[in-house]
Amino acid sequence: MKKLVLAYSGGLDTSYCAKYLSAEEGYEVHAVSVNTGGFSAEEIKQIESKALQLGVTSYTSIDAVDIFYQTVVKYLIYGNVLKNNTYPLSVSAERIVQALEIIAYAKKMGASYIAHGSTGAGNDQVRFDMIFQVLAPEIEIITPIRDKKLARQEEIDYLQAQGIHLEWAKAKYSINKGLWGTSVGGEETLTSHLTLPEEAWPSQLEETTPQQVKLSFHKGELIAVNDEELTSVAAIEKLQSIASKYAIGRDIHIGDTIIGIKGRVGFEAAAPIITIKAHHALEKHVLTKWQQQHKDYLGNWYGMLLHEGQYLDEVMRNIEAFLTDSQKNVTGDVWVSLHPYRFAIDGISSPHDLMNAHFGSYGEMNKGWTADDAKGFIKIVSNSTKIHQAVNTKDHD
Amino acid sequence: MKKLVLAYSGGLDTSYCAKYLSAEEGYEVHAVSVNTGGFSAEEIKQIESKALQLGVTSYTSIDAVDIFYQTVVKYLIYGNVLKNNTYPLSVSAERIVQALEIIAYAKKMGASYIAHGSTGAGNDQVRFDMIFQVLAPEIEIITPIRDKKLARQEEIDYLQAQGIHLEWAKAKYSINKGLWGTSVGGEETLTSHLTLPEEAWPSQLEETTPQQVKLSFHKGELIAVNDEELTSVAAIEKLQSIASKYAIGRDIHIGDTIIGIKGRVGFEAAAPIITIKAHHALEKHVLTKWQQQHKDYLGNWYGMLLHEGQYLDEVMRNIEAFLTDSQKNVTGDVWVSLHPYRFAIDGISSPHDLMNAHFGSYGEMNKGWTADDAKGFIKIVSNSTKIHQAVNTKDHD
Amino acid sequence: MKKLVLAYSGGLDTSYCAKYLSAEEGYEVHAVSVNTGGFSAEEIKQIESKALQLGVTSYTSIDAVDIFYQTVVKYLIYGNVLKNNTYPLSVSAERIVQALEIIAYAKKMGASYIAHGSTGAGNDQVRFDMIFQVLAPEIEIITPIRDKKLARQEEIDYLQAQGIHLEWAKAKYSINKGLWGTSVGGEETLTSHLTLPEEAWPSQLEETTPQQVKLSFHKGELIAVNDEELTSVAAIEKLQSIASKYAIGRDIHIGDTIIGIKGRVGFEAAAPIITIKAHHALEKHVLTKWQQQHKDYLGNWYGMLLHEGQYLDEVMRNIEAFLTDSQKNVTGDVWVSLHPYRFAIDGISSPHDLMNAHFGSYGEMNKGWTADDAKGFIKIVSNSTKIHQAVNTKDHD
Amino acid sequence: MKKLVLAYSGGLDTSYCAKYLSAEEGYEVHAVSVNTGGFSAEEIKQIESKALQLGVTSYTSIDAVDIFYQTVVKYLIYGNVLKNNTYPLSVSAERIVQALEIIAYAKKMGASYIAHGSTGAGNDQVRFDMIFQVLAPEIEIITPIRDKKLARQEEIDYLQAQGIHLEWAKAKYSINKGLWGTSVGGEETLTSHLTLPEEAWPSQLEETTPQQVKLSFHKGELIAVNDEELTSVAAIEKLQSIASKYAIGRDIHIGDTIIGIKGRVGFEAAAPIITIKAHHALEKHVLTKWQQQHKDYLGNWYGMLLHEGQYLDEVMRNIEAFLTDSQKNVTGDVWVSLHPYRFAIDGISSPHDLMNAHFGSYGEMNKGWTADDAKGFIKIVSNSTKIHQAVNTKDHD
Repeated sequence: MKKLVLAYSGGLDTSYCAKYLSAEEGYEVHAVSVNTGGFSAEEIKQIESKALQLGVTSYTSIDAVDIFYQTVVKYLIYGNVLKNNTYPLSVSAERIVQALEIIAYAKKMGASYIAHGSTGAGNDQVRFDMIFQVLAPEIEIITPIRDKKLARQEEIDYLQAQGIHLEWAKAKYSINKGLWGTSVGGEETLTSHLTLPEEAWPSQLEETTPQQVKLSFHKGELIAVNDEELTSVAAIEKLQSIASKYAIGRDIHIGDTIIGIKGRVGFEAAAPIITIKAHHALEKHVLTKWQQQHKDYLGNWYGMLLHEGQYLDEVMRNIEAFLTDSQKNVTGDVWVSLHPYRFAIDGISSPHDLMNAHFGSYGEMNKGWTADDAKGFIKIVSNSTKIHQAVNTKDHD
Repeated sequence: MKKLVLAYSGGLDTSYCAKYLSAEEGYEVHAVSVNTGGFSAEEIKQIESKALQLGVTSYTSIDAVDIFYQTVVKYLIYGNVLKNNTYPLSVSAERIVQALEIIAYAKKMGASYIAHGSTGAGNDQVRFDMIFQVLAPEIEIITPIRDKKLARQEEIDYLQAQGIHLEWAKAKYSINKGLWGTSVGGEETLTSHLTLPEEAWPSQLEETTPQQVKLSFHKGELIAVNDEELTSVAAIEKLQSIASKYAIGRDIHIGDTIIGIKGRVGFEAAAPIITIKAHHALEKHVLTKWQQQHKDYLGNWYGMLLHEGQYLDEVMRNIEAFLTDSQKNVTGDVWVSLHPYRFAIDGISSPHDLMNAHFGSYGEMNKGWTADDAKGFIKIVSNSTKIHQAVNTKDHD
Repeated sequence: MKKLVLAYSGGLDTSYCAKYLSAEEGYEVHAVSVNTGGFSAEEIKQIESKALQLGVTSYTSIDAVDIFYQTVVKYLIYGNVLKNNTYPLSVSAERIVQALEIIAYAKKMGASYIAHGSTGAGNDQVRFDMIFQVLAPEIEIITPIRDKKLARQEEIDYLQAQGIHLEWAKAKYSINKGLWGTSVGGEETLTSHLTLPEEAWPSQLEETTPQQVKLSFHKGELIAVNDEELTSVAAIEKLQSIASKYAIGRDIHIGDTIIGIKGRVGFEAAAPIITIKAHHALEKHVLTKWQQQHKDYLGNWYGMLLHEGQYLDEVMRNIEAFLTDSQKNVTGDVWVSLHPYRFAIDGISSPHDLMNAHFGSYGEMNKGWTADDAKGFIKIVSNSTKIHQAVNTKDHD
Repeated sequence: MKKLVLAYSGGLDTSYCAKYLSAEEGYEVHAVSVNTGGFSAEEIKQIESKALQLGVTSYTSIDAVDIFYQTVVKYLIYGNVLKNNTYPLSVSAERIVQALEIIAYAKKMGASYIAHGSTGAGNDQVRFDMIFQVLAPEIEIITPIRDKKLARQEEIDYLQAQGIHLEWAKAKYSINKGLWGTSVGGEETLTSHLTLPEEAWPSQLEETTPQQVKLSFHKGELIAVNDEELTSVAAIEKLQSIASKYAIGRDIHIGDTIIGIKGRVGFEAAAPIITIKAHHALEKHVLTKWQQQHKDYLGNWYGMLLHEGQYLDEVMRNIEAFLTDSQKNVTGDVWVSLHPYRFAIDGISSPHDLMNAHFGSYGEMNKGWTADDAKGFIKIVSNSTKIHQAVNTKDHD
């Protein structure tokens, strides 16, 4: 029988795929969902029961939170990656790891087919297809939603005709949740001018008393929250549980999709945004000017290529090598104040802090050089422009 | 007599210079202050009276707000320039224009000397000296504060001995105000871990009811606030007057000074930050991916070189040509919500908006291409990585 | 009748298209060839006669050498663009202008169809299709060679069956000639390890006595050769006629095609390479360090995007604005020695030369600063690394 | 007694220093020369005897060729570094390693002083001083030539008065030789328009019969020449001995010195240039487009910062990490033809060659995708520009 692995999320599209591919197309469907931090044990149970009800041969939930962190999130923190200076790439990053896990599973299973429920209009099809094709060119990719361009109601009708009477009332907002943030789409994000209403955001304000949080980093990785030592994943989750009560980290991103159209999406990412900003503040104290400059360049490119599904391009490994090497001294504590809907970086402490009172302080007279040194410096730093000016004000040409 | 132009701010350092240079060194001191948006008419009057009391031969106030905008601020907006993704270069940008205005004044006056009150430890000496040396290599630069390394109390004692009994009580926080933001230095900013206390910030919360503001841009320039058409300078000032009541735009920056040490400074810049973020949001809708990518690269460099006093390097003109050309379609409205201590970009409207519902919408099936087109696209986009994978998993070498 | 414009080169593929589209598909075929410097009047006459023999309704030759220079070549010189530091983009650049001219012609003609003879494996299809689709989405693109995947012999057989008995003996090397260089493909370039044999190169050594040529630039444009003032196009042609006798400018490029595979191609480009190297040498004398640095970055990108057919992306206009602005002082003479198979840049002369003996000479003691200035400069330039070293050798963490 | 380590080269300037510092200033002078590949055993003997004659307490020759390769040259090859696309940084690179070796020696010796013979006008003073100050801030730097601005004749007169009658006839050309090339300065290089005469070049044409050389790389390092396995240093030396007979690798560079003036220098670097070009050709076959793009960016910066003496900035370690990681597949053979005064890269062979005939060949119809795939690809790649065109030709604003 035709063994097929289906990337299954429990939503309408992949439920349709599960039923349609087994009932109509005669595939032996093995549904797999990859948890990158968005699902509770309870939710996974529900997804499983739904999958089985749809007639899949097997259902497997892969817990990929740690591998998600190790494979991608870690580098997004090292690189302070915010796409277009805005978006932590919550969904883009997840899709990569989901694709990697699913294709590994399919190969282990000996499947000849792999299916996903993406449409032909978005980014996800590219991320899934690219990774599948590169790592398993021998496996055929099946995409009923993309191929048949079904309307939502057609899918529901089909499932009901098949005796599947699940609740498919379209939520007003489509939500994608994971360790690195939650995306929110709705009718407002299909316009350019409307923002999301309060109720659309995943977290509501529950705490109004400001508090200061202490985040500790070791070589670029978050290792403690308020002095409680944790794995980086647990630290991010802990920070999220604290900060989400303040409804922090909401924003709307308008980005360039891989297929060339603009896409707008809301997102809420308290822990990711706070972690990146805290990490960045620490780096500003411990890295040199040129480290920051070139990290920035490479971090932006890492985000760009990840977003566009190019995770397997060798250059990504090269950039990871640079970023990892740059974190040697990114160790220290960062204090962050949480307030309703916002946060502030209060300060840092690090054994590698280059703002070193023993050497010279900004604005105060210093111990390392004299006024004459400073004048000599400026004189010579001005040389090239002085020469340029002298040569080019003679008014020739 | 030795004619000298003194860059005069009314503070202790330049007051010392005014007195010392005229009384002790026999210069004919012409004090000049350049207003880049920080001084009211009333304050300028006070500065003038102080200068005359100190024995200067003349005092002139140059109103440079418009030229500040045209020369520098405009390009900082075009480039969305935030140094290290944080600081709008409030002070760095001002110093450039002040230096340009002062040297022009000195040349017009026929002065042989030019003086400023910067120390040997900061950025300002570099910005002043470089521009003076490049544009007027024949004028000698005099810097008593840098040369004599006087303590604050020594300056006060000298002035009092000279019969100048002005109020020099050191303010707890040193403030530098201008069109493009206000910097705040204090004992906390000399540490790495402390933030500024509420009272240190120039603006206090006066308004708690959220409001939405409409900002209109024409080819990258802010031309209206809430549909009131204004010059860009007036529009920025109007926005500042509205937003500062919400105490928006506070942050602390830790940067790399030109002389190689780290410097930490607080700043409040409601209008600059909101303008840049609104302009950036509009650009994300109207510019192509590559325009954004390369604008980012050049905008960062524009900020870096401006910060380091390299304003007169020819490359700055080349970058300005790129930035100006990139603004052709940056026309439209941006809605911004103001809340206590924070703001949000709600959305935009532009005739050049590339998020065009008539072409294809993100996440929905589209009109411009088919599922097969998308598959063909992905197949070919994957080619290089597929080949790389195929070639390099044969395990040679 | 279905009016169709065919991009016609006179080769087998487009000859097949001419016949097939008119005879079998019932199109009214209007053949157009765009001369970007590769064809003599005589050759154009032959192409025309061939086209008419194939049954086209009309034949037009568009002389696009000047527009080729103004639209693309000029910027390739400004940017010193050599793809991967090797290839002057001879063919890539031509295709853009050919596409622009052909689509303009088709629109003027009121054609509903446009055809080209590119295969589905190369870069040209992308360049043609993209520009056609962007500028005339209403015109349908017809590509028989790509669609039918015909073997060369099948095309010949078809034409002969149609009574067309032209000489189609496949040349051992396929040649594409234009103002900006000649590409050469052959069985060797399909391997990675073989170079082209002497006879494959378009120009053979005719002159062995070295000579020095004087090239004069004005704001980045070549305006005279050996003091003979010429249009830039004529100057490039003149230089080519002199230098090609020395068999200069041969090389083999291995590049990344737009569709993701590696492609290898020989090329001969005496005038382009000499012009770029001479222009670059002049720039090294008249531009600042930062101008060179950022021109390089943008020039590389200009080449990359041009190569990939992205000529119509707005960012190309923005880069052109930067490049144009950067050429203000690129005026002067460059002396170049020509030898068999190679050339050398001997030196330059420019009123904007920044290597100015009156200021200070490299290696000799200087007039602009003292030993103490130099020491002060070095001390302060070392600050950041000194601090980094001091902080990070205490061996913590 | 005041123990001083002198960076000694055997030339007039450092000979003056040796005598002057011991005889007049009472230092215990320990002369050290660091051989980075420029000196034969015979020459070192002569340098030693000269040093002892000048009255130094000890003389030491440090053989640093291997460490030069491992510390710097290796990365210049990985990064294909040619400053301004011209100069292999022959001297710049040497100075760094010489400074590192000398300061290590001085610290081991327990010296309190370190001296070098650089003037105040060039790059070398910056490279020496920076590294000395950073690694041994406690050691005082002594620079008589810079401080006293002596004319050449004054130095000779002084030495003769001291009874030192060495031959100081100024060679017409000053030469600096090392593993990574030889620089040549003379009266022509002080002009902008003159080239060096034939006799000024270190190597003269000795061999006119062309030959093909086979260079083998392993992970970016040159490991064999004509199938003879060698250390990379020995391979470079071997290649140099073969290629220098063809007088290959001559050029003149005009660069931006660290102190802001332009400097012109001739250089001959047969092995470095051939090695870099061969390595680059191999990379073009085995690296992805993005690897090449970002390697280029970082390689340029590595050269820029190395040139400017910033070798100890942490970012250099980060860049080295990227470059090293990028070399994983840079393994294979490169065939190079040597001709009088020039060479050509003939081709390469590598197990990692991405130009893979089994996948699809450039220009031929391919196996990996169909005509429809290509059309779909182009359609979608055009999307963003199509939308931009559609939106912006409606002529608003």
